Amino acid sequence: MAKANMRYRFRNLENTGFPTSTGKAGTRMIDRTGAARIRKSGFAFWRKISIYHSLIQMPRWKFLFLVFAFYTLMNLAFALIYFALGTEHLAGAEAATSSWQQFVEAFFFSAQSLTTVGYGRVAPVGLITNTIASGEALVGILSFAVVTGIFYGRFSRPRAYLLFSKNMLVAPFRNGRALMFRLASYKNNFLTDVEASAMLVLHQPKGESRDSKYFTLKLDISRISALALNWTVVHVMDEHSPLFGMEAQSLIEQNAELIVSIKAFDDNFSNTVQQRSSYTHHDLVYGARFLPMFQHSDTKGLVIMALDKISDYEPAALPEFQHTPE
Amino acid sequence: MAKANMRYRFRNLENTGFPTSTGKAGTRMIDRTGAARIRKSGFAFWRKISIYHSLIQMPRWKFLFLVFAFYTLMNLAFALIYFALGTEHLAGAEAATSSWQQFVEAFFFSAQSLTTVGYGRVAPVGLITNTIASGEALVGILSFAVVTGIFYGRFSRPRAYLLFSKNMLVAPFRNGRALMFRLASYKNNFLTDVEASAMLVLHQPKGESRDSKYFTLKLDISRISALALNWTVVHVMDEHSPLFGMEAQSLIEQNAELIVSIKAFDDNFSNTVQQRSSYTHHDLVYGARFLPMFQHSDTKGLVIMALDKISDYEPAALPEFQHTPE
Amino acid sequence: MAKANMRYRFRNLENTGFPTSTGKAGTRMIDRTGAARIRKSGFAFWRKISIYHSLIQMPRWKFLFLVFAFYTLMNLAFALIYFALGTEHLAGAEAATSSWQQFVEAFFFSAQSLTTVGYGRVAPVGLITNTIASGEALVGILSFAVVTGIFYGRFSRPRAYLLFSKNMLVAPFRNGRALMFRLASYKNNFLTDVEASAMLVLHQPKGESRDSKYFTLKLDISRISALALNWTVVHVMDEHSPLFGMEAQSLIEQNAELIVSIKAFDDNFSNTVQQRSSYTHHDLVYGARFLPMFQHSDTKGLVIMALDKISDYEPAALPEFQHTPE
Amino acid sequence: MAKANMRYRFRNLENTGFPTSTGKAGTRMIDRTGAARIRKSGFAFWRKISIYHSLIQMPRWKFLFLVFAFYTLMNLAFALIYFALGTEHLAGAEAATSSWQQFVEAFFFSAQSLTTVGYGRVAPVGLITNTIASGEALVGILSFAVVTGIFYGRFSRPRAYLLFSKNMLVAPFRNGRALMFRLASYKNNFLTDVEASAMLVLHQPKGESRDSKYFTLKLDISRISALALNWTVVHVMDEHSPLFGMEAQSLIEQNAELIVSIKAFDDNFSNTVQQRSSYTHHDLVYGARFLPMFQHSDTKGLVIMALDKISDYEPAALPEFQHTPE
Repeated sequence: MAKANMRYRFRNLENTGFPTSTGKAGTRMIDRTGAARIRKSGFAFWRKISIYHSLIQMPRWKFLFLVFAFYTLMNLAFALIYFALGTEHLAGAEAATSSWQQFVEAFFFSAQSLTTVGYGRVAPVGLITNTIASGEALVGILSFAVVTGIFYGRFSRPRAYLLFSKNMLVAPFRNGRALMFRLASYKNNFLTDVEASAMLVLHQPKGESRDSKYFTLKLDISRISALALNWTVVHVMDEHSPLFGMEAQSLIEQNAELIVSIKAFDDNFSNTVQQRSSYTHHDLVYGARFLPMFQHSDTKGLVIMALDKISDYEPAALPEFQHTPE
Repeated sequence: MAKANMRYRFRNLENTGFPTSTGKAGTRMIDRTGAARIRKSGFAFWRKISIYHSLIQMPRWKFLFLVFAFYTLMNLAFALIYFALGTEHLAGAEAATSSWQQFVEAFFFSAQSLTTVGYGRVAPVGLITNTIASGEALVGILSFAVVTGIFYGRFSRPRAYLLFSKNMLVAPFRNGRALMFRLASYKNNFLTDVEASAMLVLHQPKGESRDSKYFTLKLDISRISALALNWTVVHVMDEHSPLFGMEAQSLIEQNAELIVSIKAFDDNFSNTVQQRSSYTHHDLVYGARFLPMFQHSDTKGLVIMALDKISDYEPAALPEFQHTPE
Repeated sequence: MAKANMRYRFRNLENTGFPTSTGKAGTRMIDRTGAARIRKSGFAFWRKISIYHSLIQMPRWKFLFLVFAFYTLMNLAFALIYFALGTEHLAGAEAATSSWQQFVEAFFFSAQSLTTVGYGRVAPVGLITNTIASGEALVGILSFAVVTGIFYGRFSRPRAYLLFSKNMLVAPFRNGRALMFRLASYKNNFLTDVEASAMLVLHQPKGESRDSKYFTLKLDISRISALALNWTVVHVMDEHSPLFGMEAQSLIEQNAELIVSIKAFDDNFSNTVQQRSSYTHHDLVYGARFLPMFQHSDTKGLVIMALDKISDYEPAALPEFQHTPE
Repeated sequence: MAKANMRYRFRNLENTGFPTSTGKAGTRMIDRTGAARIRKSGFAFWRKISIYHSLIQMPRWKFLFLVFAFYTLMNLAFALIYFALGTEHLAGAEAATSSWQQFVEAFFFSAQSLTTVGYGRVAPVGLITNTIASGEALVGILSFAVVTGIFYGRFSRPRAYLLFSKNMLVAPFRNGRALMFRLASYKNNFLTDVEASAMLVLHQPKGESRDSKYFTLKLDISRISALALNWTVVHVMDEHSPLFGMEAQSLIEQNAELIVSIKAFDDNFSNTVQQRSSYTHHDLVYGARFLPMFQHSDTKGLVIMALDKISDYEPAALPEFQHTPE
């Protein structure tokens, strides 16, 4: 049993969605924010872009700028039409005599139609201008449906708000060694049914280039019922682990990378949330243990979790690698 | 088999997301509403707050007050701009001669722009005021997208609407003893695929402070297909239970706490809903059984469930602890 | 193995969320639309009602009537305030001299504020009326957020659109007998990962009243990958079934009810959908088989499914009950 | 064990939601876009249509045309009412003397009410016209709630954006043969927890018509943790496969069709996405292997995936069928 198990454990995963052969130097697969370091080619730019995904992911300032630009351009486009049709069809804009003044009136009439604010100081007269204005109100309603949908979608998007420790440690654990990192939710959200998974990538030199091998690491505990405090995710480096017997040097040489993924249920979103991160060998501390990050409050009997201590560790002597009996 | 099972059952869960060492007195981990009794420190206030979560969770009066305050402040801010630009750029506000009157006109013009009601009795004239007004309508549309999104989100948030019995009982069950609590959905929702889970926390004295130990309790039935009536969740206190042989005194001394979590599918939300609660030793009645809480209606043949009887119990003599054969 | 299995199979489910003792006559637990036949008492009316659930579930005409009534009442309430404040604060309403005319002007001004249409023929003047009007626009935006949210929510609510056969049959199946019903999706939706579950309720006479026993029926196939055509759900009445050896008379005497539940994934909703139904012994045809309900089209090579034939069956002689080897 | 396994593997799936007997020629079950090739009859058209599904699925131009048509018709309907009531009840429209001019004023007043833009140049006067206008604003708000809901729903609908290889190959694999196809996500989305499933359909001649048999194909790897690059889904054609020993000719004669389904979690949608496709024997290349579709970038160390090479393959000699030891 133990043997079959080992064989399975050590089997290189052939199909992980990641490349199995990487250039001269093994490169990181996932960056710390969880994004894959892949570029797609061969398709036209617009075919490779999901507008929805782009708008949801982009930084806030960029999104707001785009909304502003879209709003201005739409107003401009309709303003040019009203201007071309003649401001004599805009009741209330008769006082505007210069072209510039007329354009300004057309522009703001357009803005008032698009947002459906419709003060009416300037109002459309005649068949064509009225038709355009009616169309603009419809366009405005539809456009703002998407703009506000995305705006609220960005605001309410289910996120895990997980804080990961800066380092992964190889620490003493049950008379042997274990690879560990820890995490905590740092906002006022409460996650339940929390599942962790970890994949190890080793880039082994093979002639000129390097072979990338992938291993799913078995976690000591891979699911907890609630994440009220911090969680130290532990992979025991026993004989069933691909890391059994590996010292720090060996991990560095193979450009070890740990891709971690946390999935949980958030009650307030009533939705599953997920967050990924990645540790490279630069983030590895071989021979250390995490320091506790909570203390007890006296006044209300609440437990206090110090989020700024999540990466705190102290050096620790490591015992020999330990065999785990089946 | 039985032995291995026992060993597993009695193993203290090392990683539950809750602290393993609690202060002088064992403190409650989860309050009755299901919130964790944890405080987070070390991060700036704003980094620890998810605005979305806060707005969804806060009491209704607080949320409505915030909306009102936001609306007033936004109007105030824009009103000051219009006032500073001069009310001569607000057509229809010419009659306002005093500064106060002019400010009032600017303020309500702002409100009419922000809500896009735009009566137009007062309307912007000139490039700058028009630009601000156009901007305000956009700001209004975006802001109200979030406000109304949260407002509707609060209203339609998937919730389980579960009513738990006030007490957990140790009751006679199949020639032995069992720990029980019961629950029912108290609104016009219908839950299916209902799962229950229960975690026991024992705070054992250890020198000055106390050690917190966590046990997942095996439930006699942990999943039912529909929650039409009440459900009595049962943990058999047999030799496979960490509660085997424990009398009332022992549970009180160890500050026993039962953290319960119910997960179900709600057809109307088409979503998973979850509700947590917690019983402490203060809620424990050792030696009692629940009284039935439904009766039969004669007129329409409907079963009537009396929600006000959910906590009703009667004293009951307990048999000895019973071994369950494998 | 077989024996243990049997014991398990025949075990009466003690906890189903349904009552275990029903009045004089065994009553139906679930009606054909899937609603539980339960009434809740002991709580005040408003505590037992989830407004969201009520608004989502009620018939369309009732919902639209409520919206209309709400709109009228809100307008009325604000109209009374404007009227009380005096229509001299409503610019454009000066021509209204009688109280009735003034009230009419106030009422429609209110409607124009609440919907933010704001024509402006009538517009607020003065501090107090302006304040009320600003407030009304805010109230309108918030109210319509809920109204339109529910309105769209009703429209886009994930539903399975499943059509069930009118009867459940006991049909010949693999040299033995099986209980069957069939279903199909009757709209232009496509369901994948479809799961069926069935629970049998038998109401056995016990003195004056009747005991309700519940059995989860094992289905020959309980999950299919896609529901393109119809699906005949089959429970084999072999020795592992609580129905083994039961003739029609016995099922009628025990008021047999079959509660069925179908769960699936709908690609367009990107959501899980669920539908329940129930068959009583009145819907049972003992000794019949379903007729095929699809035929082949010649022109485009499409398969044609005749939805109106879903309940079609023909009498069929039944073989003896058959033992299924383990 | 191996034997039982084989028996199970080869068992024809009796209930797949697809027809088991197909006309003269075996016809395709699923087209390349994943839609089932089924037509439903026996119900009235409107009963078979889910308006929501239709509006979500239809092409964009069709949807926009419908919105435009709906908007125009609604305006027309209300315009006729205002016109019938007399434009003397529309303040600001007095200048319109001809019937056509009056109708135009009524029409655009209607548009301004429906969109709540309400310029107010034309405004309702009198009880009846005001009542209709108030009603129209309400109708507009409710209608646009559905229109914009669907419009945004179409935009934000969770989709997998998967690109499948044009062909399925029978390729050399581990000293034997395997059936393969590959896929990649071609947009800026990132899928995790990706699951593949494949069902084989064989249409065997049986007298005049053909019998359709369904087999779930066991996949070498059926789940990967993330789809950063391409994924080659592999079914080993060993003795446990219904394809064991089948040469190209045999697959063509039986009109072999492979129905594939991919399910994954998309972080940005926070939702499960699903995509189906189908390969017929016309898409089969017997004796070929896929060419690699990624290369390494030098400048930033990113891996480049060439989407246009997803269908690229080269001929490959096939070894004999291989037995896989249990």
